[in-house]
Amino acid sequence: MFMASRTAMSRSIRLLPTRPQPRARIPLVYRPLSTVRLGNPKSPLVLSAPRRLSEVRRCTAIANAGATLFARDGITVAGVPATKSSKERFMRLAYVLFACVGAGVTTVVVLIGGFFIYDATTYKELDDTGDIEISELALNPRLGGPKNLPILERYLDDEDSEIGKVSMTKPHLVILGSGWGAVAVLKNISPKDYHITVISPQNHFLFTPMLPSATVGTLEFRSLVEPIRRIVAKVRGHYLEASAEKVEFSERLIEVSQPSRSGEELRFYVPYDRLVVAVGSQSNTHGVEGLQHCNFLKTIEDARDIRRKVIGNLELACLPGTSEEERKRLLSFVVCGGGPTGVEFAAELYDLLNEDLTMVYPRVLRNLVSVHVVQSQGHILNTYDEKISTYAQERFKKDSIDVLTNARVSRVLEDRVIFTQKDEDGVAHTKELPYGLCLWSTGVAQCEVTKDIVNSLESQKNRRAIETDTHLRVIGAPLGEVYAVGDCSTVRTNVTEHIVEFLKSYAIKSNKIVEDCSVTFQQWRDIAMNIKRRFPQAAEHLKRVDYLFTEYDTNKSGTLDFDELTHLLQDIDRKMTSLPATAQRAHQQGQYLGRKLTKLARVRETLAMDEIVSGDIDDLAYRAFEYHHLGSLAYVGNAAVFDLNGYSFVGGLVAMYLWRSVYFAQSVSFRTRALLFMDWLTRGLFGRDMTQI
Amino acid sequence: MFMASRTAMSRSIRLLPTRPQPRARIPLVYRPLSTVRLGNPKSPLVLSAPRRLSEVRRCTAIANAGATLFARDGITVAGVPATKSSKERFMRLAYVLFACVGAGVTTVVVLIGGFFIYDATTYKELDDTGDIEISELALNPRLGGPKNLPILERYLDDEDSEIGKVSMTKPHLVILGSGWGAVAVLKNISPKDYHITVISPQNHFLFTPMLPSATVGTLEFRSLVEPIRRIVAKVRGHYLEASAEKVEFSERLIEVSQPSRSGEELRFYVPYDRLVVAVGSQSNTHGVEGLQHCNFLKTIEDARDIRRKVIGNLELACLPGTSEEERKRLLSFVVCGGGPTGVEFAAELYDLLNEDLTMVYPRVLRNLVSVHVVQSQGHILNTYDEKISTYAQERFKKDSIDVLTNARVSRVLEDRVIFTQKDEDGVAHTKELPYGLCLWSTGVAQCEVTKDIVNSLESQKNRRAIETDTHLRVIGAPLGEVYAVGDCSTVRTNVTEHIVEFLKSYAIKSNKIVEDCSVTFQQWRDIAMNIKRRFPQAAEHLKRVDYLFTEYDTNKSGTLDFDELTHLLQDIDRKMTSLPATAQRAHQQGQYLGRKLTKLARVRETLAMDEIVSGDIDDLAYRAFEYHHLGSLAYVGNAAVFDLNGYSFVGGLVAMYLWRSVYFAQSVSFRTRALLFMDWLTRGLFGRDMTQI
Repeated sequence: MFMASRTAMSRSIRLLPTRPQPRARIPLVYRPLSTVRLGNPKSPLVLSAPRRLSEVRRCTAIANAGATLFARDGITVAGVPATKSSKERFMRLAYVLFACVGAGVTTVVVLIGGFFIYDATTYKELDDTGDIEISELALNPRLGGPKNLPILERYLDDEDSEIGKVSMTKPHLVILGSGWGAVAVLKNISPKDYHITVISPQNHFLFTPMLPSATVGTLEFRSLVEPIRRIVAKVRGHYLEASAEKVEFSERLIEVSQPSRSGEELRFYVPYDRLVVAVGSQSNTHGVEGLQHCNFLKTIEDARDIRRKVIGNLELACLPGTSEEERKRLLSFVVCGGGPTGVEFAAELYDLLNEDLTMVYPRVLRNLVSVHVVQSQGHILNTYDEKISTYAQERFKKDSIDVLTNARVSRVLEDRVIFTQKDEDGVAHTKELPYGLCLWSTGVAQCEVTKDIVNSLESQKNRRAIETDTHLRVIGAPLGEVYAVGDCSTVRTNVTEHIVEFLKSYAIKSNKIVEDCSVTFQQWRDIAMNIKRRFPQAAEHLKRVDYLFTEYDTNKSGTLDFDELTHLLQDIDRKMTSLPATAQRAHQQGQYLGRKLTKLARVRETLAMDEIVSGDIDDLAYRAFEYHHLGSLAYVGNAAVFDLNGYSFVGGLVAMYLWRSVYFAQSVSFRTRALLFMDWLTRGLFGRDMTQI
Repeated sequence: MFMASRTAMSRSIRLLPTRPQPRARIPLVYRPLSTVRLGNPKSPLVLSAPRRLSEVRRCTAIANAGATLFARDGITVAGVPATKSSKERFMRLAYVLFACVGAGVTTVVVLIGGFFIYDATTYKELDDTGDIEISELALNPRLGGPKNLPILERYLDDEDSEIGKVSMTKPHLVILGSGWGAVAVLKNISPKDYHITVISPQNHFLFTPMLPSATVGTLEFRSLVEPIRRIVAKVRGHYLEASAEKVEFSERLIEVSQPSRSGEELRFYVPYDRLVVAVGSQSNTHGVEGLQHCNFLKTIEDARDIRRKVIGNLELACLPGTSEEERKRLLSFVVCGGGPTGVEFAAELYDLLNEDLTMVYPRVLRNLVSVHVVQSQGHILNTYDEKISTYAQERFKKDSIDVLTNARVSRVLEDRVIFTQKDEDGVAHTKELPYGLCLWSTGVAQCEVTKDIVNSLESQKNRRAIETDTHLRVIGAPLGEVYAVGDCSTVRTNVTEHIVEFLKSYAIKSNKIVEDCSVTFQQWRDIAMNIKRRFPQAAEHLKRVDYLFTEYDTNKSGTLDFDELTHLLQDIDRKMTSLPATAQRAHQQGQYLGRKLTKLARVRETLAMDEIVSGDIDDLAYRAFEYHHLGSLAYVGNAAVFDLNGYSFVGGLVAMYLWRSVYFAQSVSFRTRALLFMDWLTRGLFGRDMTQI
């Protein structure tokens, strides 16, 4: 469409009659004026055939004035491109918007439709799998071992897949446990080098850091677990739902048991070539009486019990015949232990009571509710940065969560907790706190099998956990056969011991007696290097070797004599703290071990060629384990705190979303991530589910 | 941009030098040829200034040939609109596609972002609710009633809302139960007419028809439940988590009990003006021994137990030292009862074993698995259309699910089911079936409170359920005070009795003795009308009144004498079957009752004006209850069967999706629908969850 230019408006424009040219045969047409449509009805263009050349010129003049002469069914009209009116612009905009929305909706519909099509393909008919190869030994295992129990040498599913058939011939790697450590090993090991078996009474991996959220229905239980068989399947491994009872190191057998339906126990041996102990820990009672009245928070079952009890107490508090005092007791929630678990549970509980309770329960309950955190230390989250624990405490004060610091629980009765609290002057007062629910979340203790392993190896000195060297090999067990990771283990850091050994050999070489040895700065540098390699954790205490040398060279002899050196090393030993019992540590150890085992499998072949079959192969082939603390974080009620290697960060909702996204990223599988997101979606849309199921 | 027309291509086009016009001041410019850009580089246009008029004509000729003369910086060029090349078209298409996808993605992102923004607003800080009004009676209820227990006259949350304060003065409506019947009442009653209280030991509504799907993890437990408090909140009602024990009709009190945390029972009375009994039913033992070994399927807890047991058995079967026979037993699943529940469980179980088992468990297990359905009748789904049960049976045969018809379970032992099966000749054979899991799903039986109600009212003749009249009023209880709906109730259809009463009155009027009365066709029509109104269920048997009249007028007297009439009515009584114990029936009854109670509240006021306070107000104000069977459906393993009022429909996946969508639509809330969809999504993407939590 075109309209007349302003210059054109003033006068009439005439059409130029054209003669048909030989090359362009076009009939000469005079259209009725009316039918010549123009862009802008408000400025009609008077059209008629020009007669004189001057008019032709005029036309051209108009053309030059930005007008256009164009041929239309053989009639030349003058005009300029129509400028869009604001209405037109609006229409165009609306059009674009509609297009976008339409496209958006289409996409969503397409996605859903696509899913249904895919979904339809997931309903399989029974495909007759035909013959299945199973070795006789898998069906009727031979008896043996110290207790003459069946020995699981062949598995029912060994020959289900081609890879399975191959892996049968590979060294048998058995992993005890299905927690952070075990899963990290599984995720970092190559399936074709080992015949892998996981033994655990729990057939799922549990994402423990988010367990507190599940106790109040912010998250669903299923979103925190991943079936261990899925993870095992990825490395073509095998899984046995049973508990390891005992390890026969000499015969490389694990004694395993599982109660059968009829009640009596199934007992059998699982043979191994490499064993990874990752059985984790259990709640620490600290020898306090009456913990049978408490709830714990280690498994899904625990979380479900708590959830039921919280709702149950709310319901009971609504019934008549319940006294005011009883109501208060039912709605008093006591958390023993101010660590991350305790704090996060308190926070989540507060959220529930604050966000969801009042919507469906009598408002008066909200006033009767009380949450208490009993912490033996001076602060909650005392392992975190000072700033953080203060923030958390302030936050809790604001949320009227009652934090009792320097308070040690002495006894738990059916309806109240008895504890002694030190006041500013350090005087201890015995107090009691009635409770409707008491969560016990203070530290970790050994599992039965861990104890058994520790006791069966006399080189094990630490009674609290399985001691390993810096290669995570269980000390005292045949070298390179048994590893331990996670809460159940601790890395022995015996720098002194180790170096003295080293010196002895050195002394013998230079036939002196050790005590007479003295090391020059050069030698000390070598020793330091050696320590760093063997005990990566010690590196940070050996940053300034020259400085240390001069500091401990008390007699200024320019050399470190034996006593000075020992003294120096002992100090380093003291400085080295044991690793925290966290998911992070277990994960890193598992990761390390998975990668190392993969490496070892490769190396062993080459070593075998060089006839190196025994000896410290781990040390030859792979670095020692070093723990890198990536920081800790905690949820403290619509807010979160981060302690990232010294950089601490605290904040409200933003921090909370950040906290979530960290765990979202760490989550074990796409499945769990999807479920987590759905849960957050559900909570946002419908609030927390208040049913007791 | 424009390009020259083909006609123009052949020759050179010259520019027309233009003279500046007084009105349109445009400088005369000759642009260098190179700078005149044209649409198609392949066909350059030679431009030069025309000298003679003929050339002007030529230009115009070209113009007529569809070419365009246009002014560009004072230079007139000839050309025709460029025709799009295929490449351009492709680019345009690609552009549009990208735009759509982009818009789609944007929409999704916007949706998610929008959700997060909304989500952030859902984390409330504690708003101090200030003073809360609670009547003293709510905190310390007075004692009373036959057992001198606390009487709940005022509630803790009576005064939480303005509506609450108003409803305190309204008649107290108490609903026992939180199932289909109860929820249907709640969803159809208007909050401002009654002070509503729900009493149930279960603080959630359970979408029972889909419970079988939850036993194997096709759906999650939480997707099938809706917190009853949410539903109650919608009508500003109250909820008490407790069990009704007894009803004191004379004093209009309900005796309620709930175990407290410490173990002893809380007991109290809840007063009512109107009572709705909707307590449902429990599984029917049919007096078979050893049912403690069986699993049931009525609650979420039942479903969870089954789920745990199924996975547990699979895990046990993987362990060594389990004999082949024991494996077979563990993996033999026996379903007692071929009704919808049993059939759907068998189907779901088959799906699990077929679709998910082989992915993570040893393949050999698949061959050891067996599913058996023990049905006392000749067909499974025998309440359905013949065609359907045959289809289901064929389907099951195809899926190698073993259907044992005409088989009656006599005893259940710890490890096997003993049953007697009739062969074709009707000879009974005693057989046994070892099982790893045995589901008992055969019919319904009374709950304790139902029994108590039946026993306490001597007019109650039926021992299997609470008898109501066609207005759903409990027979024997004070008129218009107590109603019963759902599985716990049955509608008494005593046409004869009722009409005889009617005749007596009629006889007295026409002072005859009843036995001498005979009714003319006219009178019979009236009687039929009366029956239809009172017993809508009888309507279908009274379609052809004239036909019935002649048929039963045995002595062809043209009138029905007393005996003939009674005979006719008794036959009708016989024809009328009792209503099925289904969710559908409970739902319809609840709906009816909810609407009626709302109506009654209105009517009562007007009636009160007319001094009508007692009498058959229900009958005056509202129609009798009529059950409309909308059909039944069942899932039979990647297929579904529909029996929609005679029109039966069976089919595969499509039917399955239809089956789902029916339940999806019937689902109680948007929340449950969203969750259902998420579950289907999860199953489709990740398969069923095999964890024992």
